[in-house]
Amino acid sequence: MKSIVIKIGGHILSSTAFERLLHEYNNIIRELISKGFKAYIVVGGGEYARRLISVARSLGATEAFCDEIGIWVSRLNANLMVAALKDLAYPRVPQSYEELKDLITRPEKVIVCGGLQPGQSTTAVAALISELTSSPLIIATDVDGVYSSDPKLDPTAKRIEELSYQDLAQLLYHGAALAGTFKLFDQVSLKIIERSRIVVQVVNGGVPQNVLRAALGMRVGSIIKPTKN
Amino acid sequence: MKSIVIKIGGHILSSTAFERLLHEYNNIIRELISKGFKAYIVVGGGEYARRLISVARSLGATEAFCDEIGIWVSRLNANLMVAALKDLAYPRVPQSYEELKDLITRPEKVIVCGGLQPGQSTTAVAALISELTSSPLIIATDVDGVYSSDPKLDPTAKRIEELSYQDLAQLLYHGAALAGTFKLFDQVSLKIIERSRIVVQVVNGGVPQNVLRAALGMRVGSIIKPTKN
Amino acid sequence: MKSIVIKIGGHILSSTAFERLLHEYNNIIRELISKGFKAYIVVGGGEYARRLISVARSLGATEAFCDEIGIWVSRLNANLMVAALKDLAYPRVPQSYEELKDLITRPEKVIVCGGLQPGQSTTAVAALISELTSSPLIIATDVDGVYSSDPKLDPTAKRIEELSYQDLAQLLYHGAALAGTFKLFDQVSLKIIERSRIVVQVVNGGVPQNVLRAALGMRVGSIIKPTKN
Amino acid sequence: MKSIVIKIGGHILSSTAFERLLHEYNNIIRELISKGFKAYIVVGGGEYARRLISVARSLGATEAFCDEIGIWVSRLNANLMVAALKDLAYPRVPQSYEELKDLITRPEKVIVCGGLQPGQSTTAVAALISELTSSPLIIATDVDGVYSSDPKLDPTAKRIEELSYQDLAQLLYHGAALAGTFKLFDQVSLKIIERSRIVVQVVNGGVPQNVLRAALGMRVGSIIKPTKN
Amino acid sequence: MKSIVIKIGGHILSSTAFERLLHEYNNIIRELISKGFKAYIVVGGGEYARRLISVARSLGATEAFCDEIGIWVSRLNANLMVAALKDLAYPRVPQSYEELKDLITRPEKVIVCGGLQPGQSTTAVAALISELTSSPLIIATDVDGVYSSDPKLDPTAKRIEELSYQDLAQLLYHGAALAGTFKLFDQVSLKIIERSRIVVQVVNGGVPQNVLRAALGMRVGSIIKPTKN
Amino acid sequence: MKSIVIKIGGHILSSTAFERLLHEYNNIIRELISKGFKAYIVVGGGEYARRLISVARSLGATEAFCDEIGIWVSRLNANLMVAALKDLAYPRVPQSYEELKDLITRPEKVIVCGGLQPGQSTTAVAALISELTSSPLIIATDVDGVYSSDPKLDPTAKRIEELSYQDLAQLLYHGAALAGTFKLFDQVSLKIIERSRIVVQVVNGGVPQNVLRAALGMRVGSIIKPTKN
Repeated sequence: MKSIVIKIGGHILSSTAFERLLHEYNNIIRELISKGFKAYIVVGGGEYARRLISVARSLGATEAFCDEIGIWVSRLNANLMVAALKDLAYPRVPQSYEELKDLITRPEKVIVCGGLQPGQSTTAVAALISELTSSPLIIATDVDGVYSSDPKLDPTAKRIEELSYQDLAQLLYHGAALAGTFKLFDQVSLKIIERSRIVVQVVNGGVPQNVLRAALGMRVGSIIKPTKN
Repeated sequence: MKSIVIKIGGHILSSTAFERLLHEYNNIIRELISKGFKAYIVVGGGEYARRLISVARSLGATEAFCDEIGIWVSRLNANLMVAALKDLAYPRVPQSYEELKDLITRPEKVIVCGGLQPGQSTTAVAALISELTSSPLIIATDVDGVYSSDPKLDPTAKRIEELSYQDLAQLLYHGAALAGTFKLFDQVSLKIIERSRIVVQVVNGGVPQNVLRAALGMRVGSIIKPTKN
Repeated sequence: MKSIVIKIGGHILSSTAFERLLHEYNNIIRELISKGFKAYIVVGGGEYARRLISVARSLGATEAFCDEIGIWVSRLNANLMVAALKDLAYPRVPQSYEELKDLITRPEKVIVCGGLQPGQSTTAVAALISELTSSPLIIATDVDGVYSSDPKLDPTAKRIEELSYQDLAQLLYHGAALAGTFKLFDQVSLKIIERSRIVVQVVNGGVPQNVLRAALGMRVGSIIKPTKN
Repeated sequence: MKSIVIKIGGHILSSTAFERLLHEYNNIIRELISKGFKAYIVVGGGEYARRLISVARSLGATEAFCDEIGIWVSRLNANLMVAALKDLAYPRVPQSYEELKDLITRPEKVIVCGGLQPGQSTTAVAALISELTSSPLIIATDVDGVYSSDPKLDPTAKRIEELSYQDLAQLLYHGAALAGTFKLFDQVSLKIIERSRIVVQVVNGGVPQNVLRAALGMRVGSIIKPTKN
Repeated sequence: MKSIVIKIGGHILSSTAFERLLHEYNNIIRELISKGFKAYIVVGGGEYARRLISVARSLGATEAFCDEIGIWVSRLNANLMVAALKDLAYPRVPQSYEELKDLITRPEKVIVCGGLQPGQSTTAVAALISELTSSPLIIATDVDGVYSSDPKLDPTAKRIEELSYQDLAQLLYHGAALAGTFKLFDQVSLKIIERSRIVVQVVNGGVPQNVLRAALGMRVGSIIKPTKN
Repeated sequence: MKSIVIKIGGHILSSTAFERLLHEYNNIIRELISKGFKAYIVVGGGEYARRLISVARSLGATEAFCDEIGIWVSRLNANLMVAALKDLAYPRVPQSYEELKDLITRPEKVIVCGGLQPGQSTTAVAALISELTSSPLIIATDVDGVYSSDPKLDPTAKRIEELSYQDLAQLLYHGAALAGTFKLFDQVSLKIIERSRIVVQVVNGGVPQNVLRAALGMRVGSIIKPTKN
């Protein structure tokens, strides 16, 4: 059985079109299931998470607790995705690695989760599920791939169609200097996809059809893999 | 040791002033603690809960799942209250009755929770804590007491300063006909405060100082108790 | 797949014939399964619960703790039902809503539960499962339907063959004045069956065959549904 | 701080006088606490457990499940003891070794538990708590000590005032031949008290005052200890 | 469906050949599965457990905590067995009876566990699983059966091909005098296999093929059963 | 109250002197407690973890599962530390972030933990506790500080007495090229100490006295802090 992990950026669910997008994701996940896929979905926290984190920080919360606030928002978003998928989804969003691992052994339902733990991004959660289930990873975000620099800030930024893990590491190291403006990936996610040689596709998730196409092996967005052709 | 349960309506945390209100609640809770009180706080879901529930319903979710969405928002709000209270609060929002009961046995921290279970309002959770801890209950909401009819719809509505449980039951029975527009209380909350003869004060929570005054025994808003004077 | 929720009153399991009744329920549940049903069973606390609650109350326990005593008895009864159903039943009686919801996703076994939480009847638990699983609800009790007044007290009481939710609400409101002597239903159960438009049949559970007939769509006892024919 | 583990036989709570006995146990535990003791109480299943186990067995349950039925009854009994002790007791009866161990670290409350796991008697649970907390063990049962043979069957049975672990082992080995009629102790309990050299007093629990006297070091019933004087 | 419980002594996994043995156990378990078996595996703590227990004891730990150290080693060994079985095994080693019982209801995977609780051997855990699942039990140890005395100490020791539970009890009673040098079985395990009439085969687990042959009903090692032929 | 987090490398507990070292750590922790400190201890997996991980990998386990094997060893080590600390330590090693957070609110005992989750080092766990409790962090390892390159490989390596987070990041970036031979720190730990400005001391843990001296503010090993003097 083919399996796929899909990370959906929280900003997608924060957009004004989020209700329509939830509907469309429901449709493409159903199509994937009907084609014999087993799907795992990880949802991020997005704009609302960032706003509440900033409130919590101004109230004097520790950074670990701020991370927890973000995790709660991602779980709330994950529950909306569960509502969209109806009977297709397992109706509980797992709250720990152990719970997640337990659900992975039950083959009948789509598992939807948000964040698990402070100090760990939802992308890292998605990479961990890819590792546990030997599945490729699709990252549905608000740009249409990995760029040479932040395309929102730099008009000369170019989309890179294929990257090795080493290429991604280089981008991240330099991106790190940009103080958080360019963060599709964090170091943990990178380490996991590298050590387990996970193939990753980065696509524009505002058009859910891109996720379907990527899952079916079509070329869309950027691909990250052990070595470039 | 005096103890008090405070239910804070989620709409208060949905207002544009919520950051300032969180600060003020932090201040009055600290004052209560310094006066020797043990405080339990229950936070509702408010406007954001209602909006997401309506999305979930339109996506086809069961009513039980819609309740769960509301519960998640109330827990998120409860976490923001924890952030505001800092070291004063127990850092985990309980997710079940058993967890809640366990925390109640630990005297050192303020416990903050949201909803627990579908089919049960956050007001019922607050009433249950009052029952378990033999504490009076303060309901901080967006009107300044119990009215003879909905003050937002009926200009002749009058605030009732004192009510017996029987009076409240009468209001609720007739209020039920108003299709959900007048719902400080539900039947479970009523049953619990009645069977355990809990004294309840309903105050305008948009002015946190009202909660402090009510806790200290001053007359503010409406009071519900076994028999009228 | 057809599914059905069966609430079995604890008084049935408190009768001297309870061992025979457990055998008979085993038989009818097996018959339902063989006809393609998925069954959920909720067992009440009955006479033994009422007796221990009265002891706990006289010892000074809070009402919430008295509810817990009743819940423990209902769980003990549920375990006896599990013993009767043998390999047909999931061997653990769930103790919380989350546990219950998790079991509902596992299609292979009959789930048997008792009460979940203080302030919530076992009938409300059954209504919640009906809501979560979109199943009709059969209430197996010690009278053969819903009556115009308490048939044990009022010789003129008449059985009502069909009720709308509104009819039931009227009965409950007046029944409430009878101080707890007439309580097939509580307000939470009513709210849940109403909001999710659950069809309920009330039958005499002392004759398990009635439950089978009701599940198979035959007319037995009283039926509660959105509108009367 | 002195600490003590008290095993109260379930038959005591099954007697018609159980309400009075719960009251008296409340009194003597309060007296022990006021004298500076930390108390742990384990309650057995008694007659009601034996009756339901026999029903479960006749329904075809496995022996492990029959043990579980007995454990549920012991937990129900433990909850009644919690009700009797009111605010003195931790309000949740632990259901696993991990839960029990966690509660043991909280010094403020009396912990009351029933059985934990199939294949393990409530006496073994009590011995395990003695071992974890380095406390002597009092077994409150329906005879007034350890006898040379079963005093209910053998008129020549003599009470033995002092026994070594080796003496107890001899009695148990021969008692084993008596097919379960003589079972204050099982092999696991014996092994635990022996390996950790726990001093055990066996007293008639139908007179709660005996438990108090034993805890205070007075000679009552039989004593089991590493070596006889 | 045929089912089988296999207890693998921890000393087998402590040997220098443990990596090869894990490979071979993987092979024979796969063969059993392919022949339609459902398999449950319990792994002991072995030499490493004994060494760490002795360190913990010298540091002043209670015997209950020493048991826990042994349990942790058995769980670590169980995880290595999970690694060896790969996708064949459920990926979490259960840590309590409730977790174990839950996993037993999921038919798809091999369940691997270590110890559960102080005062209970891993052999008793295996016997409990046999009882819950009505399966025969194979004990894979470092001798090739049950002997009349300890074959490592007594050159006249003879292997006994068939034993009744009564015979085993006699051996254990006398073996007990040998201060722990002869302990395939403890009293709890004996009680469980006797009350549920479980057939047990004791084989040399250093040759995994013996386990396969025993599971397939061939005569190997010693057999323990209700009555001798 | 002063608080301190101590990360003890697993290699220390893998050395032949580990029994003596456990004794010494017990002594210095007692001394810290007597001086008014609250201590949190995180123990690594060390040599034994690395050996079993290599076995698991050769058996075909996923990298996530290999991480789990390492975590189990670190928990076993943590239990030995608990045994050494006796009544000073909370007797359960937490297995998840939520459990850890819960224990942190209980002021009476030293908390000892190992790893929590795949993809996260025990150093990151220690940094997280520092963040949650606003405590400095001491890393007790097998070298006496941070070096300009790996002192075991490069004879010209120099110990750096003071580093800023930026300095450490530079070292890590270049160290990363050394293929895992130089790994006191990982990226997650670095991110956490940086965002919460945690002061870290790296000392030779083979001499437990160093940990005491570092906790008391003496200069020993290397110090990492927001800015160099």
